[in-house]
Amino acid sequence: MTDQHYFDAAETRNPAAREADLMARLAAQVGHARMHAPWYRDSLAAIELAALTDRAALAGLPLVRKSALIEQQRAAPPFGGLVTTPTADLARVFMSPGPIYEPQARRDDFWRMARALHAAGFRRGDLVHNTFSYHLTPAGAMFESAAHALGCPVVAGGTGNTEQQVQAIHDLRPVGYAGVPDFLKILLDKAIELDRDAGSIRKALVSGAALPGSLRAELAGRGVAVLQCYATADLGLIAYESAADGVPCDGMVVDEAVLVEIVRPGTGEPVPDGEVGEVVVTNFNPDYPLIRFATGDLSAVLPGASPCGRTNMRLRGWLGRADQTTKIRGMFVHPEQIAAAIAPFAAVARARLVVSRSGENDVMVLRCETAPDGEDGLSAALGQALTEATKLRGVIEIVSPGSLPNDGKVIDDTRPVG
Amino acid sequence: MTDQHYFDAAETRNPAAREADLMARLAAQVGHARMHAPWYRDSLAAIELAALTDRAALAGLPLVRKSALIEQQRAAPPFGGLVTTPTADLARVFMSPGPIYEPQARRDDFWRMARALHAAGFRRGDLVHNTFSYHLTPAGAMFESAAHALGCPVVAGGTGNTEQQVQAIHDLRPVGYAGVPDFLKILLDKAIELDRDAGSIRKALVSGAALPGSLRAELAGRGVAVLQCYATADLGLIAYESAADGVPCDGMVVDEAVLVEIVRPGTGEPVPDGEVGEVVVTNFNPDYPLIRFATGDLSAVLPGASPCGRTNMRLRGWLGRADQTTKIRGMFVHPEQIAAAIAPFAAVARARLVVSRSGENDVMVLRCETAPDGEDGLSAALGQALTEATKLRGVIEIVSPGSLPNDGKVIDDTRPVG
Repeated sequence: MTDQHYFDAAETRNPAAREADLMARLAAQVGHARMHAPWYRDSLAAIELAALTDRAALAGLPLVRKSALIEQQRAAPPFGGLVTTPTADLARVFMSPGPIYEPQARRDDFWRMARALHAAGFRRGDLVHNTFSYHLTPAGAMFESAAHALGCPVVAGGTGNTEQQVQAIHDLRPVGYAGVPDFLKILLDKAIELDRDAGSIRKALVSGAALPGSLRAELAGRGVAVLQCYATADLGLIAYESAADGVPCDGMVVDEAVLVEIVRPGTGEPVPDGEVGEVVVTNFNPDYPLIRFATGDLSAVLPGASPCGRTNMRLRGWLGRADQTTKIRGMFVHPEQIAAAIAPFAAVARARLVVSRSGENDVMVLRCETAPDGEDGLSAALGQALTEATKLRGVIEIVSPGSLPNDGKVIDDTRPVG
Repeated sequence: MTDQHYFDAAETRNPAAREADLMARLAAQVGHARMHAPWYRDSLAAIELAALTDRAALAGLPLVRKSALIEQQRAAPPFGGLVTTPTADLARVFMSPGPIYEPQARRDDFWRMARALHAAGFRRGDLVHNTFSYHLTPAGAMFESAAHALGCPVVAGGTGNTEQQVQAIHDLRPVGYAGVPDFLKILLDKAIELDRDAGSIRKALVSGAALPGSLRAELAGRGVAVLQCYATADLGLIAYESAADGVPCDGMVVDEAVLVEIVRPGTGEPVPDGEVGEVVVTNFNPDYPLIRFATGDLSAVLPGASPCGRTNMRLRGWLGRADQTTKIRGMFVHPEQIAAAIAPFAAVARARLVVSRSGENDVMVLRCETAPDGEDGLSAALGQALTEATKLRGVIEIVSPGSLPNDGKVIDDTRPVG
């Protein structure tokens, strides 16, 4: 592997050196955010910067919840007090469904996506056909600014207009594709139907939708090496796939400029490595500092090092949504309430609320992992705590440690739909 | 008026100084194009650069016809031999209907639209809601890159999504709008319907469709000062409206970095000032040199100086399409053929082929402006020349100089449609 295999030397750092670097930046970022972003002025007021030296200290910082962002922005428009740069000095403002507003500051590769594009094989001068939308939402701009940072010219295909896009591919012969995975297949199929040549496309960076193994294999069979990345409109790049000797590696390597934690949904408490939980990200973006941003996405740490040679933490990719709020007997129940119910019980390591239907009634069972030699009266105390937290009565079921599924679910709604 | 009223000092130059400057740049541009763009290597091979010192010399250069661009690009993909910069070094490649491909090089304000945005009152820090499409065609990028050059942040609204765009305007409070004129009215009306506030928008730069006086007045009555500009995907800015003391001035001021000629359609021959003809533009773009680019648009020079203080040539705006090709008795007739038919007759200043219908037959009358003391036999000779040029027989009608309408029409097809 040549040096060009990596985007920069940071990707192959000694993990301890990386961790030390990120931790050194953490205190500075918290200080910056507290100084310039009104939200953090309050939420981080009591934090002692000098103590922010490890993951345990990081885990003590309050979360910023994506799920609360709509309300937070409405209360303090347009960015909920999280952006340090005046709107007049930004490059663009985007609107995602919600609405949620996102800033783009005047900096190259603002979302740090160039690293993912590089890992997918894109190099200077490669013409990139970009089918993410440029309108209102930032996806188009995220991938385009990455291409520009690498020195790749872009065809702004956008969404729809399939026949014209096929004609453009036929005429311009782009070597790379950026977009959702399905649309690449649609374009290749349409090219065959219209007797146009889309064979110039040899590599693709996809995101925004699932890439089933069957689709990846089909596209590979048609000459396109497809890798994925995981990014959000707020944070930019979180993690990206890589390849070793042309073969996609398992998992997604975490970006070099974020701190990723996996926490139990409804809490800010990190889970052991390998356990599925909510992805919480801290970035070092000076314009839009997101400190412990709870994405609402589920993932897990994939143990071990990537065969591609990158040394950073790997994620298993996107494993679902962490927001498991549900309605039981007419009342909303949030993961946070379950977390609050079990919090006083040190013996309970994990819990899972299983909601089912019996005749015309909703049935609520809280399954709690605890050692068999649990205290007497634990079930009764837990039942009372559950009712206090949810205003609903439920059954407590004690199960042995490790017996609950590793899927990040704190509320498992098994009721038939409809 | 303060200095800030003008984008730069070039706008108020002494016209003779401007002309001298442009002419000095012309020879350099022709030399550059001939050296680096294959098309010009051939078409401009015989040009003597030292002789390119005035408009008469400019008028001696061959045209590049927008109407021939599709074929020219097909023969030499992707840009017809007109682009000097390798595709790998571009920022973006666009596709307009045709298809016609357009380059964007890696330069700020590539299309020079910032001047028009400035004339429309946009200033650093103004949030611009841009509803031109960013997908495939360059309109969105043209106005956005202008906003960025001025230091204005942009909301990339794009086309459609009217309700979300209204919500974004309500929440983000942009002061400026860029887009087609009709869509601004649609957004303002939709805001009323949805009880949202679009009152932040106070200025607009529009293009791409007609702005009737009634619509401009209505928008002004709703608090939005609307100015237009004239630009194409190939050339960028050609001319722009300006205001004096808040009142839109007549005509459009020509951009400082183009040479505009008005020529008789079908020829490269400049018409006298004030006469309607085809807009032919020479730019100084190093990446995409367009030398005597025949736009296919009709306009005319508006005599006199603009009350806004800008000293450049003014155009009357877009007055229709110059492409008057029609089918007569099953045969195509182009303006170029009419020009060729009358070219040998020095006495004929202007001519207009009037096509009409008599019963089941197409009737073709060539009306020729010539002095009353024309030579004997002129009509017969003109008739023969017309038949030679068109393979069709027509009637010659001699009319006095100045009697043909000033509308740029060389072929006037008066036959009932359908």
